[in-house]
Amino acid sequence: MKVKAIFYHAGCPVCVEAEQQFATSLDSSRYAVEIVHLGTAKNRVTEAEKFGVKSVPALVLGGRPFHINFGAPLSALK
Amino acid sequence: MKVKAIFYHAGCPVCVEAEQQFATSLDSSRYAVEIVHLGTAKNRVTEAEKFGVKSVPALVLGGRPFHINFGAPLSALK
Repeated sequence: MKVKAIFYHAGCPVCVEAEQQFATSLDSSRYAVEIVHLGTAKNRVTEAEKFGVKSVPALVLGGRPFHINFGAPLSALK
Repeated sequence: MKVKAIFYHAGCPVCVEAEQQFATSLDSSRYAVEIVHLGTAKNRVTEAEKFGVKSVPALVLGGRPFHINFGAPLSALK
């Protein structure tokens, strides 16, 4: 079964670069990657917070948050 | 040809987690991943700086730096 990977972003330039370079580099035979734009899917901000996400872009892998560079704090997306 | 990916770390707990969860998740058919411990390979700190790495753990993908969470500043490894 594939491990779930969720890439949270907000459309910022730092986010876009991380998405293009990073989210696409995962091994798709092992990871099911979902890309979530928190600017448009505001109902998922709480979900991201529960994983420990503090800023975007961030990738949640196996339930653990990994912040990639820094685009915007989660608080700016509420 | 595979894209070169360099994962820089310093053996810190944040680094180890990022290495185990992250560096191993890249698609090995597309990326040649090298793992560099800057605490022991101090001669490579300058190389990391040239890529724009400011802290570890960091992954350089296609020449661009991506800082993953925060373990230690590069300045602490000189």
